[in-house]
Amino acid sequence: MTDRTGALIAIGGHEDKDGDRVILRAVAERLQGGKLVIATVASHEPEGYFEAYRQAFSGIGVTDLVELYLDEREDTLDPTRQQLIASAAGIFFTGGDQLRIVSQMGETPLEELVRDLHARGGVVAGTSAGASAQSETMLVRGNGAESYRIGDLHLAPGLGLLSDVIIDQHFAERGRIGRLLGAIAHNPRLLGIGIDEDSAIIVEGRCFNVIGSGAVTIVDAGAVTHSNIAEAAPDRTLSLHHVVLHALSAGDRFDLDARQPLPGPVDPGKAEDKALS
Amino acid sequence: MTDRTGALIAIGGHEDKDGDRVILRAVAERLQGGKLVIATVASHEPEGYFEAYRQAFSGIGVTDLVELYLDEREDTLDPTRQQLIASAAGIFFTGGDQLRIVSQMGETPLEELVRDLHARGGVVAGTSAGASAQSETMLVRGNGAESYRIGDLHLAPGLGLLSDVIIDQHFAERGRIGRLLGAIAHNPRLLGIGIDEDSAIIVEGRCFNVIGSGAVTIVDAGAVTHSNIAEAAPDRTLSLHHVVLHALSAGDRFDLDARQPLPGPVDPGKAEDKALS
Repeated sequence: MTDRTGALIAIGGHEDKDGDRVILRAVAERLQGGKLVIATVASHEPEGYFEAYRQAFSGIGVTDLVELYLDEREDTLDPTRQQLIASAAGIFFTGGDQLRIVSQMGETPLEELVRDLHARGGVVAGTSAGASAQSETMLVRGNGAESYRIGDLHLAPGLGLLSDVIIDQHFAERGRIGRLLGAIAHNPRLLGIGIDEDSAIIVEGRCFNVIGSGAVTIVDAGAVTHSNIAEAAPDRTLSLHHVVLHALSAGDRFDLDARQPLPGPVDPGKAEDKALS
Repeated sequence: MTDRTGALIAIGGHEDKDGDRVILRAVAERLQGGKLVIATVASHEPEGYFEAYRQAFSGIGVTDLVELYLDEREDTLDPTRQQLIASAAGIFFTGGDQLRIVSQMGETPLEELVRDLHARGGVVAGTSAGASAQSETMLVRGNGAESYRIGDLHLAPGLGLLSDVIIDQHFAERGRIGRLLGAIAHNPRLLGIGIDEDSAIIVEGRCFNVIGSGAVTIVDAGAVTHSNIAEAAPDRTLSLHHVVLHALSAGDRFDLDARQPLPGPVDPGKAEDKALS
């Protein structure tokens, strides 16, 4: 295999931390005994996050854990922090505000080190805000559980580890289909990926498989025949005809370049085995 | 025109009752001065419903309003109640429990009189539970705002005024995309129609147009290539590949037989004019 790029694991938030821990195990298995950096950068008040993950991961054999936090952008120049990522087998971005991750880390040596980690085969995982930040474009604000109105949405560039997609999280739980349709209406080049809580996609190359207890919803506006997003007033409700939607669950696989589910979903019990092969 | 069938108006709940009242006006305009029956049958405690609609409709010129309630199924044999519907220009089913409407009225003379009313050009409107009851199949229970699990859903036959569809309401507000996908997965012959609050479809013949402030979401599983609904355990999350979704808003029109939006959405300000022509 010439592509040594590691896995991206995007989690919809509230992953199980004391039961089977299917999702955290998928992270752990890819560390091969190496160090995991818990990046709590998304939070304005990071206290408690690291301890929760230390407990959750130590129960499944990951003991080499360190915390990375940034009070200010200039902390990204700190050689000690840089060394944490340079020597790690993986990084896990916890939840909070995706805009904090990107505004603190964008165009810094630390961001470059995260890219290097991914390129050399390391795991880059993120939950909630940490999942959103992986994609090319992020939703940073937009109401859930209501009709999507054209002026509602705020997008921002993400870390861009995963191109041509926009990831939204807590998807079913916060009724976010409307805002994700609004996001892809802006530019149908972006594929919308909505990840429910305790659910994740594991991206290897340009394919991913689904693990966890909930659904992953894909919305594809590539074949849309009518959109009013550029014509209508901000308080107008979106019209978007002929969106393709895929409801995916554990064991399903998806090709991001073909924008299609892959045939023959694997047995959910064996999904992890196949993903590792 | 040989088809004298009247309009069906299915409303997603919480329609505006003291502002412009766009949706209630659409009902009022079709009465042509005739009597409107407010059927509060869906509610176990109907007190207050009639008065709220009396006030809302009287402000837009509808003064001939009567309430219809059924304590028991045998009330459907009451000639006074039968005469109410026989002499009406329209009926409006208020919210509550769709199962109460159908279990009280199904296969009774009153149900037949509602069909006759529709067939002779009368309006049959319904909001929330009253909207669900119009469709061939109704969702009677199923969680919103979470991943759809295969065992979650309870379906029941509706009044069947609108065939080949299943209507869900409070759609964006209660995060119901998952349960509607679950419903259409059962039999993709049924087209799923999710109506947001203060939003409605006006069905005339086999086409409808959208009015109100929110969205109407159509999900069509006709072209689905993979479904796990019959294979998977009840607590498994749904997989459903290649669903077609249409986000519709005021002015959009849709052909239920072709299962396609109609070209050239009308100007939302003029939607009502065109629907009447």
